[in-house]
Amino acid sequence: MELALQDLNAAAFAPFGDVIETAGAKTLEINDGHCTRFHDLAKIDVTDDGGRPLVNIFRTRLWPMPLPIKMMEYHALSSQAFVPLGDIRFLIIVALPGAPLDPDSMRAFISDGSQGVNYHRRVWHHPLVALAGQADFLVIDRGAEGQDCVEHHFAEDQWRTVTVAL
Amino acid sequence: MELALQDLNAAAFAPFGDVIETAGAKTLEINDGHCTRFHDLAKIDVTDDGGRPLVNIFRTRLWPMPLPIKMMEYHALSSQAFVPLGDIRFLIIVALPGAPLDPDSMRAFISDGSQGVNYHRRVWHHPLVALAGQADFLVIDRGAEGQDCVEHHFAEDQWRTVTVAL
Repeated sequence: MELALQDLNAAAFAPFGDVIETAGAKTLEINDGHCTRFHDLAKIDVTDDGGRPLVNIFRTRLWPMPLPIKMMEYHALSSQAFVPLGDIRFLIIVALPGAPLDPDSMRAFISDGSQGVNYHRRVWHHPLVALAGQADFLVIDRGAEGQDCVEHHFAEDQWRTVTVAL
Repeated sequence: MELALQDLNAAAFAPFGDVIETAGAKTLEINDGHCTRFHDLAKIDVTDDGGRPLVNIFRTRLWPMPLPIKMMEYHALSSQAFVPLGDIRFLIIVALPGAPLDPDSMRAFISDGSQGVNYHRRVWHHPLVALAGQADFLVIDRGAEGQDCVEHHFAEDQWRTVTVAL
């Protein structure tokens, strides 16, 4: 039960969230010609019910490969954005909102190393899988009292796998 | 009138904003041991008066060096965060809040290439100066109708300079 990998682009990823990248963005020339601003790349959705934007760095370790997809999660009240701090390819495994999780809606994308993603509220996603031994990502999510994370753990005979060369 | 450069660290930068870095952060082990979360690294302050968080990429071009500090700006309603997407040293030139700008409060810091910054509301800052020919930064600022940016242009006989090797 291998899940096929797709290249990441805005159109294919639209049902799940935003691709944070310069391609296709609205641009503005600012700072007296010394900077191009690629404008408004993600819908950050974290302030309902007393939430505030959090900025964090996630430092990852290698996952086994082929990767068994044992669990996925979603955030009931918030988006979550991941941007690689450098040229770091990573896997993005998602499924459409809804409970229980619909396995037919699962998709696996691969970032080209410069692309980040922003999962929209309630979109199922696998924890961050970087294709590098140690890698740092900037993460924008929600700070609040309480917890808005919902997990789905697959039965072992339902595990699907993703395989990618490091 | 050369402005001295200081290394960037949280204590020295505290009057102006946050240093976005792993050093000194609260950490959490997450994702079944595959990730360290360096938690809540910046006070994002963008939602007053109808604002929302914007995520952008800024792509810079080289500035002249020595750099004459011709102008600085602040945002009356919002913080603004800059995080290098990769190992990119950059200059951070700031002054304490207040109008008119107090030149005695001007400071110049240099990021080690991994460190980002978040200017707090009303902190005077120079536009982004990366010490690289083309460099990308993730920028988190405020989206809203209208403009909250205030500029101060120095008279030419008041220009101070910063010098750093590329």
